[in-house]
Amino acid sequence: MTSGERFEDPRMRGFRSRTSVEDVLGQIDRQVEKLESERLKLDQIGGRVLATDLVSTVDVPSFDRAAMDGFAVRGEETFGTDAYSPIAFEVVGRVRPGQFSNLSLQSGQAAEIATGAPLPPGSDTVVRVEATESDGRFVRVFEPSPPGRHVGRLGEDIARGTVVLRAGRRLRPQDLGVLSSIGVDSVEVIRRPRVAILITGDELVAPGGSSTGPMIADANSPMLEALVERDGGLGSVLGPIADDRDLLRSTILDQLATADLILISGGTSTGPEDHAPGIIAELGELAVHGIAIRPASPAGLGFVRGKPVVLLPGNPVSCLCAYDFFGGPIVRRLGGRALGWPYRSVALPLDQKLSSVVGRVDYARVLVVDGRVEPLAISGASILSSTTRADGFVVVPADLEGYPIAATVTVWLYD
Amino acid sequence: MTSGERFEDPRMRGFRSRTSVEDVLGQIDRQVEKLESERLKLDQIGGRVLATDLVSTVDVPSFDRAAMDGFAVRGEETFGTDAYSPIAFEVVGRVRPGQFSNLSLQSGQAAEIATGAPLPPGSDTVVRVEATESDGRFVRVFEPSPPGRHVGRLGEDIARGTVVLRAGRRLRPQDLGVLSSIGVDSVEVIRRPRVAILITGDELVAPGGSSTGPMIADANSPMLEALVERDGGLGSVLGPIADDRDLLRSTILDQLATADLILISGGTSTGPEDHAPGIIAELGELAVHGIAIRPASPAGLGFVRGKPVVLLPGNPVSCLCAYDFFGGPIVRRLGGRALGWPYRSVALPLDQKLSSVVGRVDYARVLVVDGRVEPLAISGASILSSTTRADGFVVVPADLEGYPIAATVTVWLYD
Repeated sequence: MTSGERFEDPRMRGFRSRTSVEDVLGQIDRQVEKLESERLKLDQIGGRVLATDLVSTVDVPSFDRAAMDGFAVRGEETFGTDAYSPIAFEVVGRVRPGQFSNLSLQSGQAAEIATGAPLPPGSDTVVRVEATESDGRFVRVFEPSPPGRHVGRLGEDIARGTVVLRAGRRLRPQDLGVLSSIGVDSVEVIRRPRVAILITGDELVAPGGSSTGPMIADANSPMLEALVERDGGLGSVLGPIADDRDLLRSTILDQLATADLILISGGTSTGPEDHAPGIIAELGELAVHGIAIRPASPAGLGFVRGKPVVLLPGNPVSCLCAYDFFGGPIVRRLGGRALGWPYRSVALPLDQKLSSVVGRVDYARVLVVDGRVEPLAISGASILSSTTRADGFVVVPADLEGYPIAATVTVWLYD
Repeated sequence: MTSGERFEDPRMRGFRSRTSVEDVLGQIDRQVEKLESERLKLDQIGGRVLATDLVSTVDVPSFDRAAMDGFAVRGEETFGTDAYSPIAFEVVGRVRPGQFSNLSLQSGQAAEIATGAPLPPGSDTVVRVEATESDGRFVRVFEPSPPGRHVGRLGEDIARGTVVLRAGRRLRPQDLGVLSSIGVDSVEVIRRPRVAILITGDELVAPGGSSTGPMIADANSPMLEALVERDGGLGSVLGPIADDRDLLRSTILDQLATADLILISGGTSTGPEDHAPGIIAELGELAVHGIAIRPASPAGLGFVRGKPVVLLPGNPVSCLCAYDFFGGPIVRRLGGRALGWPYRSVALPLDQKLSSVVGRVDYARVLVVDGRVEPLAISGASILSSTTRADGFVVVPADLEGYPIAATVTVWLYD
């Protein structure tokens, strides 16, 4: 009997087997779908995910317009000018943005024009003001400006009928500008997922409370709230909830009425006070319990009334790790975002060996010093400060014993 | 006389000279300081910037505690066990998290213990439950567990007196957890900058309005609001404001009472309707007017009553470019963040030549296709859709004529 097989021994408590990270992510990918959409105004949709393709019903610009301040003329009449032999035009008026002028230019005539103003009939170019000299009645032009130069032509930005933005796009600041410029004032975006964050543990006092005697302040709720917010969800914390099966069960049932996802922190393992797994199995399906990942193996995934429930270990590093591996992808998928991590990554060489164990994924906190990766010595599941001291983390896949010194590894940066 | 020198000719309107991008950024770096701090609760500070160093006044954990579910025993008494020759201990009680037990273990005794519970006196290790078999009265231990194994020791996460987080840090989700675990419920963070966004232009209708006749819908306010939000500011839009000097002047004066930064979009060039530069010069200092950057040269920077004012060209691409180069750094600096862009960057080879002009910085929108960089053909300052079609942008420095094909360039990704 090897130590690996011992985990299969039914005489023993604890996890008899653990699901691979890959399998859990596969289940999330297959079973969690994006939420329905809601219609919102432009000033509320930055960073949100578009629910439908958007087609422009207008041309932008909707008329030929000046792209520079200067003088509108006929371009062919400027040919041959230069700094020593300017050509003079009669200034017959001025065209301002927001007005269609009733001017119609004849040969030899010019109209002063400001950026954005409609080109008057008879003109086809704008001589930029820097290349002119005007006394108000006549303007001397010092450089040729061929037809179309410094003119924004009808539809050149966006032609009517064009798909401007595709469904699934996470909206950028400039996208909102484009939407406005095609006359759209509200769009359908995927609803933000409502995430109930249940914090359990008899030993916990609420965040900010002092840790007196054997009680400790809950670190997970402020962390999880910020993580859910980062991933586009609307988190609401319940707890600390005592390790009482009936209380936890009724809280879960209450939250199922409104939440799109339930995160349960603590009480997720196999001990007598670990109520969450059994409750989920009773109310719905406990799809995964025990995952081959360190330091988050007592994690789980279930579905109740079609809604996902993620069991996060109470140890704060495990909680962070389990959220980032399993909770975050669900929040992002529900909200229509990509499953992948929001962290930046860099590929850098290891400064020393990084050990792991075949058969489980390892979440190793690291420093980046002078372009080299240093694994943090302290790696306990309860040492939350390892994740604040670290610059990021390296994921060692389940099929590796680790990485040798100088191996190039991908660092996911916390910042 | 060369074409370059013509810009210095005082007979001509337009910019007689342009300030380098580097100089403008230098002025921002020297003259803009971070705002004062405000005290906020943990659930409000995700992503905010810490104003002071934070020192822990407590040890975390504040007692030796179990890091696994299992049995607390004396570690030396487990030496020599293995799967075939377990050692039995008498189970004298159970210790739960949140309680100091009155147990005191003698030789040969064990206490069932749950993760997070205080280690009872007399024990110094936790045998994980997976390596035990218990009938309630006795537990058989199948693996040795030396003293300290699976024990979180007093102060091992955070020792009293340690600087936990430094001033200037942008708070991560896990930082909030650490703050909670040291009993902190509120901290001083840099105040969010209030940014007044003034949209000017006779030709503009409010976002979402339809572009009828010569009027166009304002694209800049929704874009700028989202950019300011991204950079940590609180934006409020005023406008569209007509091109009326007195109206703009009084609006600026009003906003100076409450805003930390004023952004003015449109009317920033040298034409007769470009009122903003003159107003800033009259009320304070117009430090920069005209910048050697394409497509945002009619941009400016001023200071009125110690508050920065950024002049953003009305053309939407120019507006985005000027915001990202000059507005964004000010918003981030005021809020205590780093000046640099929040965009991810990648270094990739050019698929074709990228032309520019010596003497100005160029902001070139590009696609990334199969790992190669393709400059977008359409580059007009008014073609906002170029920034929604693009994957990102490449900055060509002022001292280069561009980049040759296959050159490796840095792409700043919009997403």
